[in-house]
Amino acid sequence: MESIKNRTSIRKYAEKEVSEELLNRLLEEAERTPTMGNLQLYSVVVTRSEEGKKALAPAHFNQPMVTEAPVVLTICADYRRTTIWAENRKGTPGYDNILSFMNAATDALLFTQTFTNLAEEAGLGTCFLGTTVYMPKMIIDTLKLPKLVMPVATLTIGWPAEHPALSDRLPLRSIIHHEHFEDYTPEKIDDFYAEKEALEENKEFVRINNVETLAQVFTDIRYTKKDCEAMSVGVIEALKQQGFI
Amino acid sequence: MESIKNRTSIRKYAEKEVSEELLNRLLEEAERTPTMGNLQLYSVVVTRSEEGKKALAPAHFNQPMVTEAPVVLTICADYRRTTIWAENRKGTPGYDNILSFMNAATDALLFTQTFTNLAEEAGLGTCFLGTTVYMPKMIIDTLKLPKLVMPVATLTIGWPAEHPALSDRLPLRSIIHHEHFEDYTPEKIDDFYAEKEALEENKEFVRINNVETLAQVFTDIRYTKKDCEAMSVGVIEALKQQGFI
Repeated sequence: MESIKNRTSIRKYAEKEVSEELLNRLLEEAERTPTMGNLQLYSVVVTRSEEGKKALAPAHFNQPMVTEAPVVLTICADYRRTTIWAENRKGTPGYDNILSFMNAATDALLFTQTFTNLAEEAGLGTCFLGTTVYMPKMIIDTLKLPKLVMPVATLTIGWPAEHPALSDRLPLRSIIHHEHFEDYTPEKIDDFYAEKEALEENKEFVRINNVETLAQVFTDIRYTKKDCEAMSVGVIEALKQQGFI
Repeated sequence: MESIKNRTSIRKYAEKEVSEELLNRLLEEAERTPTMGNLQLYSVVVTRSEEGKKALAPAHFNQPMVTEAPVVLTICADYRRTTIWAENRKGTPGYDNILSFMNAATDALLFTQTFTNLAEEAGLGTCFLGTTVYMPKMIIDTLKLPKLVMPVATLTIGWPAEHPALSDRLPLRSIIHHEHFEDYTPEKIDDFYAEKEALEENKEFVRINNVETLAQVFTDIRYTKKDCEAMSVGVIEALKQQGFI
């Protein structure tokens, strides 16, 4: 898995098909990922048609890779398959609750990342779209997701037509705690973020966003309190609609 | 990543240390996993002490691998680091909501699975403990997790001292939908689960649990409606306590 060391998200793809054979092989290998009780509480909607990608794009803020990628995968937390199986087998399923959503979302996300690791090792480029949970109801409607199915991840996939530079990461010491959580002091924060804040591309990012600090790009422009709160309402509504709360 | 094809969860470990050097290398490589806005909304609590493992065990139903593994990792959705960074940099963070929890949980779980894939490729055995979200308040107390930090995954790690047989998986057709979700009919369910239900070990599993069908082992014994509903109350309380709802 040497590919992990140099991976970057790929948003521009070559005009070259991703064969169904390759896609299926990677998805099947990713199925080895462990899941709760080996129930595999996930499902994958594969979108290849122009029409399907156009219909999904607005839920992802019309980011161009949604329509430009040969394949879009929407990975869902799916307790429906298991529930219907149980109903048809004299079982008494009770998975219309938040714990069950978290179990299924966990299965789905672990599966997603093994797939991504495998796809990138095979030379494919991928982009994980965090927008999936921003306006889930749009995706639910577009893909006709029934109760007990909730979208949690979207990947665009194709053969890379760009080679972006590696993006920065926080030093390992900033993510590790030993034995128990040691809270973040102002000194630690200065240490953890010093390298990130000093990078020329991040300074430029501050300038073009017309703010004073790098953190402000995120809190005041990209992921604002107002947006997070408004979209949280939509998340709760979607979880209710899908029968998880 | 050939290791994925034959991986199994490992619950018995050799009496052999997992060096800090190896662990740190794998964690650092796993940091290449993409995250929302490259904010890395996760942290990892490393437990190596006997005392620490004993303290964590009850939250995981005292499964023996928690105390027997050389290393236990508790991976947390962590919006606290970013929030404190922003507060110290004139930003206005607003991440005390369910959307932000889902963003951070997503980052944490994708990171967890890249780490797992890397660890298994390096020959380590791992077991993902789904129990992490069952009684999160016990883990929060034990690890002293502050607001905006929520445990979402636990891994036990060590050198394998067992080689279990590969467990079954559903056929690929049962997890894939094309263009939109195609609902599960009784015929499809019969097809998807036929192989699983016919396996000798699963028939034995039905016998020892004294039920009629394999599905009933899950719905009536392991993941009952009553338990899921009771534990959902604890999940909501923990999310409130940690400031995410």
